[in-house]
Amino acid sequence: MRVLVLGGDGYCGWASALHLSATGHEVSIIDNFYRRLWDHELSSPTLTPIKTLPERIRAWKKVSGKDIECFIGDICNWEFISGIIKKNRPDAIVHFAEQRSAPYSMIDREHAVFTQMNNVIGTLNLLYAIRDFVPECHLIKLGTMGEYGTPNIDIEEGFIDITHNGRKDRLPFPMQPGSMYHLSKLHDTNNIQFACRIWGLKATDLHQGVVYGTITPEIEKDEALINRLDYDGVFGTVLNRFCVQAAIGLPLTVYGKGGQTRSMLDIRDTVNCIRIAVENPAKQGEYRVFNQFTEAFNINQIAEKVKSAGEKMGIEITINHLQNPRIEKEEHYYNPKNTNLINLGLKPTMLSDSLLDSLLNIAVKYKSNIDKTVIDPKVTWKGTKN
Amino acid sequence: MRVLVLGGDGYCGWASALHLSATGHEVSIIDNFYRRLWDHELSSPTLTPIKTLPERIRAWKKVSGKDIECFIGDICNWEFISGIIKKNRPDAIVHFAEQRSAPYSMIDREHAVFTQMNNVIGTLNLLYAIRDFVPECHLIKLGTMGEYGTPNIDIEEGFIDITHNGRKDRLPFPMQPGSMYHLSKLHDTNNIQFACRIWGLKATDLHQGVVYGTITPEIEKDEALINRLDYDGVFGTVLNRFCVQAAIGLPLTVYGKGGQTRSMLDIRDTVNCIRIAVENPAKQGEYRVFNQFTEAFNINQIAEKVKSAGEKMGIEITINHLQNPRIEKEEHYYNPKNTNLINLGLKPTMLSDSLLDSLLNIAVKYKSNIDKTVIDPKVTWKGTKN
Repeated sequence: MRVLVLGGDGYCGWASALHLSATGHEVSIIDNFYRRLWDHELSSPTLTPIKTLPERIRAWKKVSGKDIECFIGDICNWEFISGIIKKNRPDAIVHFAEQRSAPYSMIDREHAVFTQMNNVIGTLNLLYAIRDFVPECHLIKLGTMGEYGTPNIDIEEGFIDITHNGRKDRLPFPMQPGSMYHLSKLHDTNNIQFACRIWGLKATDLHQGVVYGTITPEIEKDEALINRLDYDGVFGTVLNRFCVQAAIGLPLTVYGKGGQTRSMLDIRDTVNCIRIAVENPAKQGEYRVFNQFTEAFNINQIAEKVKSAGEKMGIEITINHLQNPRIEKEEHYYNPKNTNLINLGLKPTMLSDSLLDSLLNIAVKYKSNIDKTVIDPKVTWKGTKN
Repeated sequence: MRVLVLGGDGYCGWASALHLSATGHEVSIIDNFYRRLWDHELSSPTLTPIKTLPERIRAWKKVSGKDIECFIGDICNWEFISGIIKKNRPDAIVHFAEQRSAPYSMIDREHAVFTQMNNVIGTLNLLYAIRDFVPECHLIKLGTMGEYGTPNIDIEEGFIDITHNGRKDRLPFPMQPGSMYHLSKLHDTNNIQFACRIWGLKATDLHQGVVYGTITPEIEKDEALINRLDYDGVFGTVLNRFCVQAAIGLPLTVYGKGGQTRSMLDIRDTVNCIRIAVENPAKQGEYRVFNQFTEAFNINQIAEKVKSAGEKMGIEITINHLQNPRIEKEEHYYNPKNTNLINLGLKPTMLSDSLLDSLLNIAVKYKSNIDKTVIDPKVTWKGTKN
């Protein structure tokens, strides 16, 4: 299939683009390199020495023989994105092209407004471009499990059957997002659902958990294909950050009590989920939600797993509890469902000691790149008065 | 109380500003006159000959002895709105300063993007300004009953108790907005709810029904105070539009089958609801929702009421069904609750024949201003290909 990967130079986007290319799809990438810009803004580059996009594409051509076309620009620019969609006529669009960090969105008002505008306008432009030029194109949109928050009931996949005062309906699952970023994803969710209902578009909204890891079968073919690995307090996801802390003998920093439970998945599962969604499109007019994760752990459990994996490698690891910079429940019920992707054939990669070893090994391999000053959280949810 | 009315030159905003001033509050208005700009954009001015804001303010001073201060500018401009809030230090902010027309938001992509950006950024700016400069200020935000859509269960006020797989929680009511405009209000709802939870702000989200009428006790004191009355296919609410059609002998145009049911209220109730919310603030950290309407009718019932009121005045009225430009259920269950405002003392003004007479009389009085060409709907929900 012809697949356009938006944000294809980013962490999940790059890995997904390669996997789709490797599995026979005709892949093009759109990116505006904002993620690389934020490395400079925050003085916190990726741990791994990623190459420029043209270098990456050439390396992929060398190892796979396959071409990936690139379009450089911003999907918030209507002339740009509509022009590409008219010309490229994709069968599927995989949409990673959003600001994806909760702490980044909580830095201040400007970052909150940027995050919501960037994410919402980009997605609105896509919906109109699909409606007007490729109405049969399948939109595969990256949402987040964080849209749901932590309700005291089981988390279903997008919708819930409600009985109320003797009457029944199947309605959108009530959402309680935990940051300006998570809110932006919920705004997208609502806009996409409307576009499917009103215009008959077809979309899969992947509510993804916290991703860990950096290697996929495609990426490990050549070091020039290496994926980014963020470990800073703004863009670093929790398990990746812990492994980097472990690699240089820093304590693992658990925010608050550490009873916060999060759904998680290996980046190798991310790329498989994306491929599964591409190869099993929604029906015309259908808006469907897949909860994209494999396991749920609380933060203390993750810290303990990293600690024990490190000890097997001879690294002594301590765990510190920091005052939580976020405002969130630190102990709560959490039972999300993920049956849709499993039913379509996803074989989960469970977080094991051997996997943690390999992640720790990567952190150790590149440990001379680590800047200790960017790891601790500086952004607080409460904010500060001007 | 010191009350800042955002959008205080508009239809509900002007009437509310006067009522708050008349009832002893110290009122200031912010407006950027976008609503007057859209009159020009759409070539569809108000039926009633409204004065400029300075003329209106002088007329109010003359009849009431009271001053209303005005600040002219756009709340999407942070320097502007934060500067005013720092200086004015309001006890309450009544926020009408949004693009409020569903058809306007559905004109095309640009109007959809404008509506969502304008509404969402303006409200985000307010939330940050309140957090940083007046955290005890009560935000009274105009939402819409259209956020709920038409679920097959009773519509509660903002939240619903859900029992699911043997567990219980009180969660945000699941929303199904019916246009890009209604979606923008839902985005606001989610952002405001988050700000109350995380920053301890206090807010009342008024999910308002369809407003009809133009006269309030304050407005009828002087013709220079007259309120706008829109009857065009974009900004005209249904009952106002039917009265204008009746006044010049045009058939009332019902969209589709006419079984669509909407919650409605007289503009005199709007201003009372606003005053009740101002005088009974939410608690610090509380996000509460009041469904602001008094009665629910389907479109056929409204048409029949206008028809029979017109006939008593000797106007013969016919009813036409047009192909529905919107995509919506034309027959559905509809049972929204509105107990919060009633419990706080709202005395509903029911839609009666006498009330319809007065609305019809206004339409007849100004009928030489009516432009027949702007009444029929030109914006369709399906849109057209570029």
